[in-house]
Amino acid sequence: MLAETLAAIRPADAMALAEARAYQDRLTKPRGSLGVLEQVAIRLSGASGACPPPMPAPAALAIFAADHGVHARGVTPWPQEVTVQMVANFLSGGAVANAFAAQAGVSVTVVDVGVATDLPDAPGLVKHKIGYGTADLSQGPAMTVDQAVRGLEAGIIVARDLVASGARCLITGDMGIANTTASAALISVFTGKDAAEVTGRGTGIDDETYAHKVNIVREALRVNGLPGAAVSGPPASREFPQPSEALRALAAVGGFEHAALAGFILGGAAARVPVILDGVIAGAAALVAAALDPAAPDHCVAGHRSAEPGHAAALAHLGLRPLVDLELRLGEGTGGLLAHPLVCAAVRVMHDVATFDAAGVTEKPV
Amino acid sequence: MLAETLAAIRPADAMALAEARAYQDRLTKPRGSLGVLEQVAIRLSGASGACPPPMPAPAALAIFAADHGVHARGVTPWPQEVTVQMVANFLSGGAVANAFAAQAGVSVTVVDVGVATDLPDAPGLVKHKIGYGTADLSQGPAMTVDQAVRGLEAGIIVARDLVASGARCLITGDMGIANTTASAALISVFTGKDAAEVTGRGTGIDDETYAHKVNIVREALRVNGLPGAAVSGPPASREFPQPSEALRALAAVGGFEHAALAGFILGGAAARVPVILDGVIAGAAALVAAALDPAAPDHCVAGHRSAEPGHAAALAHLGLRPLVDLELRLGEGTGGLLAHPLVCAAVRVMHDVATFDAAGVTEKPV
Repeated sequence: MLAETLAAIRPADAMALAEARAYQDRLTKPRGSLGVLEQVAIRLSGASGACPPPMPAPAALAIFAADHGVHARGVTPWPQEVTVQMVANFLSGGAVANAFAAQAGVSVTVVDVGVATDLPDAPGLVKHKIGYGTADLSQGPAMTVDQAVRGLEAGIIVARDLVASGARCLITGDMGIANTTASAALISVFTGKDAAEVTGRGTGIDDETYAHKVNIVREALRVNGLPGAAVSGPPASREFPQPSEALRALAAVGGFEHAALAGFILGGAAARVPVILDGVIAGAAALVAAALDPAAPDHCVAGHRSAEPGHAAALAHLGLRPLVDLELRLGEGTGGLLAHPLVCAAVRVMHDVATFDAAGVTEKPV
Repeated sequence: MLAETLAAIRPADAMALAEARAYQDRLTKPRGSLGVLEQVAIRLSGASGACPPPMPAPAALAIFAADHGVHARGVTPWPQEVTVQMVANFLSGGAVANAFAAQAGVSVTVVDVGVATDLPDAPGLVKHKIGYGTADLSQGPAMTVDQAVRGLEAGIIVARDLVASGARCLITGDMGIANTTASAALISVFTGKDAAEVTGRGTGIDDETYAHKVNIVREALRVNGLPGAAVSGPPASREFPQPSEALRALAAVGGFEHAALAGFILGGAAARVPVILDGVIAGAAALVAAALDPAAPDHCVAGHRSAEPGHAAALAHLGLRPLVDLELRLGEGTGGLLAHPLVCAAVRVMHDVATFDAAGVTEKPV
């Protein structure tokens, strides 16, 4: 299924991109006056191969939840059971992601890909459990390559099912106490940046815990024989690793939710449905997806800039510019949800706005 | 009517602010993890005097349209008739503001406060014409103080009527070829910054026109005997001018839409309905409103950061942080419209999200 999905992904359509650029300049607004939103609309034209691109609605948020063996190393003050408690909160509609989704008219699906305990069945919960939390990435691989592939395929299935149910935009969400540690390790591997540059304070840790967390990330890379900061050369000149290396890196230091999110991104790209990325966890997963298929980022929009330093590194590597920049550091898909109305607004301009000719508005002499 | 409105404006309620701050910390999210949006929700609690604050919906956009005598000085390559052409475009639903308003579910009202020609009646058009364009601000006052007061009252009436029709959030919009020139002059007067620091390229001008535009702004301040950059001391230490001085400055270098927008802001504040400010034109008008009543900005949210340099100066003076930062330079209310879903999301968190206690989620040990 992974191979089939990768085979279905197409890069941005050059003709649709060119057509969208030209069309933007005919609309009744000064050229370029919608700034970044013009680029988003043009980008989605390329991704969909159509000008104007289809409206990215209705949208569906999938929150991939999993636990992490590295939690035992004390990288966060939050107890591990908060993962399952927050899953219950999502399912009862009490989390920030639910409030933002309700505001944006977006559906919420929670996917258990590796929570440490068994979850009772519930409406809105989908089970693709790969394991009861990963192994401790600082002592060896967090998961097997087979588990990583199953995680990717779980994400592909979720994307495919949501698109089959009518979703025309996918939004990434995540829940997993300690998952910023795994994200930092993945980002270090895929961008070549040092652990200290890409490790952040997650949902809030003190200086001592922060220093410990950076050391854990370094240890994870060393124990698993991964390049990380050891790779020389400026990041921009580095190619993404080969797919087999990417899979091994994902298995070594990723979380089940990273695997599933990477699959979710690939599934959206294969279906030519845009994927709005949330924060640093999605950014790390998008690096994996891009390593598996370099055309995958053409189908992504960066929802927001997280306060986590690794996120900026991931976005720079992916060539994505975030839409919302409000110092959020929550995860759950909250940044992606806030970006959805902006993406819709950008696309709606191409559907609704009159051209200078049609509206009888005098164009500025060029 | 202006005096009555000013008398009705209350500053932020300290108890509601404190209650909102404490309540944010009880919600199931790491403390502070919603960044700027937590501040917005707290701010609106203070403005409304209620925790949680009322949902800022439905919202209404008012686009105040007017022409400017300074257009004759060649400060923009766009012909003056584009103002009336764009009014027709708004009324037929073909402008970017219409597309964004449709996306956000916001109503659009166009207010003629001073377009240079007579407009035929049309649904969605309200007429409060103060004049057929202002006089040239570089040769004397753009309007009389009496006209400025009538403009303010027009804005107050529009705000009052929209609130009476059910609007629970007001969004500022504007249309007027050459109105960034008047905005730069107002911002220079009210912030004490030099014309060159607060004058921008509007919807797009070349270097020569830009230099000419800066000179026109300087000339306007000199001819009208306004302090502008001549006021000494760092901006932060400057008090807003006295109301009578503010009125004189508005009349000297403002546009009819600036007067009406300032009134619209005051009207929203008096009704305790939040006002989302669009870009540089609204920022200039908000400086006038703040000079007339220092509590007015407590009821405002800065929708976006415009590419115009004067906008940043105005926001800094008002103590407002913009929500959307996407290099927009269109006006019409587009930046305010994009911010509306973000403001709603911020407030909805306070209505919908479960507390740690209620959700049975373990709180991080402090």
